[in-house]
Amino acid sequence: MPAKLKTAILGATGYSGCELTRLLLRHPRVGKPLLLRRQSDSDAPIDLAEVFPSLSGNGGYPLQPFSWSTLHAEGVDLLFLATPHETSRALVPEAAARGLRVVDLSGAWRLKQAKHRAVYGFHDNGSHSSELADKVIYGLPELNGSAISSATLVANPGCYATSVILALAPLLLAGVVDRNRGIVSDSKSGVSGAGKEANSRTHFVSVANNFSVYSVFGHRHVGEILEQLNLDSCELIFTPHLLPIPRGILSTIYVHLSKSMTGAEVETCFRDFYGNRPWVRIFPPSRLPQIQFALLTNYCDIGFCVADDGRRLVLVSCLDNLLKGAAGQAVQNMNLMCGWNEREGLN
Amino acid sequence: MPAKLKTAILGATGYSGCELTRLLLRHPRVGKPLLLRRQSDSDAPIDLAEVFPSLSGNGGYPLQPFSWSTLHAEGVDLLFLATPHETSRALVPEAAARGLRVVDLSGAWRLKQAKHRAVYGFHDNGSHSSELADKVIYGLPELNGSAISSATLVANPGCYATSVILALAPLLLAGVVDRNRGIVSDSKSGVSGAGKEANSRTHFVSVANNFSVYSVFGHRHVGEILEQLNLDSCELIFTPHLLPIPRGILSTIYVHLSKSMTGAEVETCFRDFYGNRPWVRIFPPSRLPQIQFALLTNYCDIGFCVADDGRRLVLVSCLDNLLKGAAGQAVQNMNLMCGWNEREGLN
Amino acid sequence: MPAKLKTAILGATGYSGCELTRLLLRHPRVGKPLLLRRQSDSDAPIDLAEVFPSLSGNGGYPLQPFSWSTLHAEGVDLLFLATPHETSRALVPEAAARGLRVVDLSGAWRLKQAKHRAVYGFHDNGSHSSELADKVIYGLPELNGSAISSATLVANPGCYATSVILALAPLLLAGVVDRNRGIVSDSKSGVSGAGKEANSRTHFVSVANNFSVYSVFGHRHVGEILEQLNLDSCELIFTPHLLPIPRGILSTIYVHLSKSMTGAEVETCFRDFYGNRPWVRIFPPSRLPQIQFALLTNYCDIGFCVADDGRRLVLVSCLDNLLKGAAGQAVQNMNLMCGWNEREGLN
Amino acid sequence: MPAKLKTAILGATGYSGCELTRLLLRHPRVGKPLLLRRQSDSDAPIDLAEVFPSLSGNGGYPLQPFSWSTLHAEGVDLLFLATPHETSRALVPEAAARGLRVVDLSGAWRLKQAKHRAVYGFHDNGSHSSELADKVIYGLPELNGSAISSATLVANPGCYATSVILALAPLLLAGVVDRNRGIVSDSKSGVSGAGKEANSRTHFVSVANNFSVYSVFGHRHVGEILEQLNLDSCELIFTPHLLPIPRGILSTIYVHLSKSMTGAEVETCFRDFYGNRPWVRIFPPSRLPQIQFALLTNYCDIGFCVADDGRRLVLVSCLDNLLKGAAGQAVQNMNLMCGWNEREGLN
Repeated sequence: MPAKLKTAILGATGYSGCELTRLLLRHPRVGKPLLLRRQSDSDAPIDLAEVFPSLSGNGGYPLQPFSWSTLHAEGVDLLFLATPHETSRALVPEAAARGLRVVDLSGAWRLKQAKHRAVYGFHDNGSHSSELADKVIYGLPELNGSAISSATLVANPGCYATSVILALAPLLLAGVVDRNRGIVSDSKSGVSGAGKEANSRTHFVSVANNFSVYSVFGHRHVGEILEQLNLDSCELIFTPHLLPIPRGILSTIYVHLSKSMTGAEVETCFRDFYGNRPWVRIFPPSRLPQIQFALLTNYCDIGFCVADDGRRLVLVSCLDNLLKGAAGQAVQNMNLMCGWNEREGLN
Repeated sequence: MPAKLKTAILGATGYSGCELTRLLLRHPRVGKPLLLRRQSDSDAPIDLAEVFPSLSGNGGYPLQPFSWSTLHAEGVDLLFLATPHETSRALVPEAAARGLRVVDLSGAWRLKQAKHRAVYGFHDNGSHSSELADKVIYGLPELNGSAISSATLVANPGCYATSVILALAPLLLAGVVDRNRGIVSDSKSGVSGAGKEANSRTHFVSVANNFSVYSVFGHRHVGEILEQLNLDSCELIFTPHLLPIPRGILSTIYVHLSKSMTGAEVETCFRDFYGNRPWVRIFPPSRLPQIQFALLTNYCDIGFCVADDGRRLVLVSCLDNLLKGAAGQAVQNMNLMCGWNEREGLN
Repeated sequence: MPAKLKTAILGATGYSGCELTRLLLRHPRVGKPLLLRRQSDSDAPIDLAEVFPSLSGNGGYPLQPFSWSTLHAEGVDLLFLATPHETSRALVPEAAARGLRVVDLSGAWRLKQAKHRAVYGFHDNGSHSSELADKVIYGLPELNGSAISSATLVANPGCYATSVILALAPLLLAGVVDRNRGIVSDSKSGVSGAGKEANSRTHFVSVANNFSVYSVFGHRHVGEILEQLNLDSCELIFTPHLLPIPRGILSTIYVHLSKSMTGAEVETCFRDFYGNRPWVRIFPPSRLPQIQFALLTNYCDIGFCVADDGRRLVLVSCLDNLLKGAAGQAVQNMNLMCGWNEREGLN
Repeated sequence: MPAKLKTAILGATGYSGCELTRLLLRHPRVGKPLLLRRQSDSDAPIDLAEVFPSLSGNGGYPLQPFSWSTLHAEGVDLLFLATPHETSRALVPEAAARGLRVVDLSGAWRLKQAKHRAVYGFHDNGSHSSELADKVIYGLPELNGSAISSATLVANPGCYATSVILALAPLLLAGVVDRNRGIVSDSKSGVSGAGKEANSRTHFVSVANNFSVYSVFGHRHVGEILEQLNLDSCELIFTPHLLPIPRGILSTIYVHLSKSMTGAEVETCFRDFYGNRPWVRIFPPSRLPQIQFALLTNYCDIGFCVADDGRRLVLVSCLDNLLKGAAGQAVQNMNLMCGWNEREGLN
C-alpha cells in the first residue's frame, strides 16, 4: 500500500473547513490532516472538538498555529485553504514558491478577468496578471477535469456557481440556448452559505419563518458563472435567496431554447455531457430534484421540465453547499490532482 | 349605530376558514359569524376550538351543519365559502338564487375562459357560460374595486395569483413591459398553502430542511394571472416552490422593460397606481421586502431592483397567504361590497 | 370619552419593546406611545420601522432620545422600561421621585431578598433596602392583583417565572403539595427569550435541528419563583432549555401530592383559584396545552395529568414569552394600575 | 478475506429501515443487503430509491416481496425486522425455527413481563411464556454485551429507552440513587420517532413553531426502562415530548442521590461503567451534550450537573433516534453477534 498523502487545512473551524476535516479523516488515501489556525487568533480554540463537539470521542483534533516551517516539518504535500479571500490572496504565492499543491476554497483566485475580480476588492496592479494567476485552475471537475489532473493550484468554485454552471454548461456548449432571450437563475441557499459569523441576518429569529432575497444584480459568484460559461453579463440574471434551513442549494434556471426540443432530447444532451461522471445525477424529464435528495452527499442533482412549445425550459439544480459546493468538491479536486478515482472518500 | 352584518362561514375548520373566523370576530361592523360544516361530516367537530385550541377561552364557537334553511333562519346576509372547489361550484347557483351575497375563497368561479377552467376539472357544458358566471367578480380590490363594490358574487383570488398580479399590473398597464421577452415568476409559498390534508408531502420530516419545486408549467393559479393581466400563456412562466415555513409567499419576478427606466421612474409607476390603496406597500428602489415583514398582516409588499442597463427588472412581492392571499382579502372584499373602509377589521 | 393615557416606552427596539409598541398602538384607552431610545446609541435607528419593517405603512414610529425633560414635556403618565437590568436599576429612583408610574420589564426590581438579587450583580449596599424597593410590586396580576391596582412601580415578571408560578401557586396555596419530595420544573423556551443579541448561541445554524439545556441549578428566574411561592431553594429544581422556535414557553412540572387526589379535584383546585381571571385557561384532566395554542395570545394555559396512584402530578404550562411572558403582562399590569378591565387591549 | 455476511431487511421503506440500509451498504463485513417488502403491499415501490431519492445514483435498490423461500434461496444469515410490532410478533417464531438470526427493531419482543407487554396489545395466552421469548436478548450492548454475543434473537431497544437506561444504569447499579425520592425523565424527541405515517400530528404546520407533551404516565417505552433497570413503576416518571426537528432525542433526568457526591465522583462512576465502550461519550461535570453533537452518529452522549448540596443530580442524555436509537444500535448488535468490533461500519 502506498504511503498516505499528507494534507493540511487552514481554517478548519469554519463550516467548510470542518466538513473537509471530516471527509479527510475518512479518506482511505489520506493521513490525518494537520489542522491549522491563523496565528492572529490568540484566543483560538486549541482543539477542533471544542468548536464542533460532535467530533469528540475519537481522540483529539489539535489546532496548531499556521507557519510555513510547520508545513515543511510535517512534510505537507497539499494545503487546503478554507480561509477568507484576503488570507488566500496573501498565502498562495508563497505556497506556490515552496512547491506546495493548494486547493483554495475562497474566492480569491477563481476569476480571470479584472472586472470580475473587483467585486472582491482586488484592484489589480501589475503584479496580478502574473504567471501565477494563470497557473490557477478553476476546480470544477466536470468541466476542467484534465486541467485539474495536472494542476498544482486549484481554485475551488463557489457553491452557487457550481449549481448554476453544471446545469447550464451542457446546453450552452451544445449551442441550443437562445442567449438573446436571457437566462435567469433564481437560486436559494441555506444559512451555512453565509458563514459562521453571528449577526442580525443570521440570528435564528431573523431567519426562521422567513425567506428573503439579497445581492440582486450584484452577487460575487456571478463573475465565475459568466467566465466559465462564456456569457456576457447582460445574458444572465442571477438572484440569490436565503432559505430557513441550515444547508443546501436549489437553483431554478429559466432558459429559452434556440430550437424546439423534447424532454428526451434535453435529457440526451445532459447524459452525453455527464454520462461517465460520478457526481452529477441527471433526472428524467419532469422529475425534479429536491434539496433533501442531495443533502449530505457530493452530488449535484439536475432535473428539468420542457414547456409544451418545446422552446422554454426550466432547470432545477440541487446540491449540498458544504459538500459539492465546497468541501466535497475540494476532495474531488484532490482526487483528480493525485490521479485517484473521483469517488474516493466521498461515498 | 347600524345593525351588524350577519355572516356565515362554510369551511371554518380549514386554515383560511379559521383565519377568516378570527378576523370576523374582531370586525367592528360584523356580528359573530355563523360557523357551518358540511352535512356529510358525520364525525365532524362540534366546536371550532376543538380544531384550533388557541381559540378556546372566549366562549364557544359551535359548528352547525349547513342548510339553506339555517342560513335563512339566522338571517345571513353574506356567505363565505372556504370550501373545496367542487362544493363552491355546487352551492353558488342556489346561493345566488336565494339572493345571498357570496365571497368564495375557492378557485371554482375565478376563471372566465374555458381553457383555464379545465384545470379544475370543470368541463363546460352549455350551462356554465351563463349569466351567473358573468356576474361573479374577480375579487382583487386594487384592480377591480369598483366592480366589487356593486357585486353580489365575488371570487376571492388565489394566494400566488395575488402576489404576482399586484406586482405586474402597474407595469403592464403602463405599457412598459417587453412582453416578447417573456416574464418569469419564481414563487415560493409556506406549507399552509397546501391545505390541512396530511400526506407524505406535508409530513414534517419531508418539509423540514428541504425546499422543492412543483407544478412547473401547470399550476392552477396560472389561468387567473393570465386572465387578469391579459397575458398570453407563452408570455409568462410561473413556477411554485414549497418553503419549509408554515405561512407566507415571496414571488421573485423577472421582467424586461420596453424602454430604459430608472428606479425612481419604476417607483413612480407603482405609486401612481397604488397611491391611495391601503393594503399595498411599495418599497423604495433596491430595498426589498421579506416574508416576515408581511406575516400576520393584510399587506402585499412590493419592492424591486433595476439593472444597470435600465432594461431588466427584478420585482419581489410578499404577502401572508392566509391573509392578503385568502381570508384578509375576503374581508377586504366584504368591506367594499358593504361600502365600508377597506381597512376595517384588518389592522 | 376620557382622555387617553400618555405612555412612553424606553427600549422599543428589542423584541419585548416592539411587541409592547404593537399592543399599545391598538389599546383603546392609550394614545400613541412615545418611543424612546437611550442617548448613548448615537447610530441608533430613528424610526422603529427600520428595525421592524412589518410596522411600516401606518405612518412613522419616530424614536426620540431619552430625557426626563422630554417625558415631562410630553406629559407622560406611565413609563415602560424594556431595558437591560442595569438601566432599569439606574432610572427607576428618578422616575419615582418625579411621580411617574413605571412598569419595568427587566429583572432589576423583581427580587426582594438580597441573596436572590446577587445573581443580577446587584450587591446591596445600604441604599437598596430602601423605601423604594419596598414600594415595587411584583406584577403577576393573578397573584398580586389588588396590590398592583394601587401600585405606582411594578416589576413585570420573568417569562419562565410566570409559567412556573401560575402552574404551582394554586396547589401550593391549597397545601396539597408534598414539598419534601421536591418539585421539578423542566422548562423550554423559544429563542426570542434570549434577546436580539447575535452570538454563536443564537446563530440559525446552532439552533436549527438542535435542542439544548442551559443554566442548570443557576438561572436568574429561580429567585422570583422561590420568593413568590415561598419555597426553599432545595425544594425546587428549575431547568431551562432552548427550543428551535422563535417564541413560546412550555414548562413540564413534576409534583408529589401530600394526599391522593383525582383529576377532578385537581381541576377544582385550579378553577377555584383562577375562576374569574381572564388570562389563565385551565384544561380538563389529561388534556394538555401545546405552545401553538398560546402563541400570539396573552393566555397562560395550564393542563395536568394525575398518576394512577393519585399522588404524582405532571403539570404543563404554556405561554407566549413575548406576551403573557413580557409585553402582554405589562399591558395587563397597566390595565390594573389604571382601574381598567384586565382584558383591555389584549384580545 | 472471509466471505461477507448475508443480511436481509424487511421494512426498508421506513425511516429506521432506510437508515439501516445505508449503514449496511457501507459496512465492510456485510454484503449488499436483500431488501424485502411485505407481500400485502400490492402497490409498494419496487426500488428503495423511489422512496428515498437521495439513495439513487449508485445502482438500484430493488425491493422484493418477502417470502421464507427467498430468504433461503439467497442464503440469508441475519434478518433485520424494521416492521410494525404485529409483524415482528408473527414472523420471529418461524425465523427462529428456520435457524435464522434476527435483530428485531420493533417493540414486539423487548418486554419480559406480561404487565408491560399488554401495552402493545399482546395479551398473553399460554404460548407466549415460551422458551422462545426467553431466548430473545434485549439488545443494549453496553448492558447486555456478552449475552448479545451469543444470541440468535435480539430485540433492539426503543430510542427513548436507550437514552434513559444508559444515563441511569451506572448510578443505579452503583447503588447511589435514592429510589424513594423518585426519578423523573423529561424526554424530547424529533418527529421521525413517530414514524412516516402522515397524520394531523405530523403535519408540518402542526409541528413547526410548536412543542408538545404526549403519553404522560403511559408511553410504551416505560416497561423497557423499568425492566432493564429493575425499577418499580412508582419509582419513575417518564414524559415524552415532540420537538420541531426531524431527528434526535434529549432526555433531562432528575435523580436524588442517596449520599452526597461531587461532580468528579459522579464522572468516575460513569467512566468506571463505560470506560471501554466506544459508543457512549461521558462529558465532564457541568458540560452538557446537545442534540446536534450526537446527530448522524451512533453515540449516546451523557452529561450532568450536581447541585450545591451534592444530593440532587440533573443528567442529560442525547442520541440520534435513528442511529443509536434504532439502526445504528441494530448494527452494533449485529457486530457483537458476529464477534466483530462494535465500531465496525459505524464510524
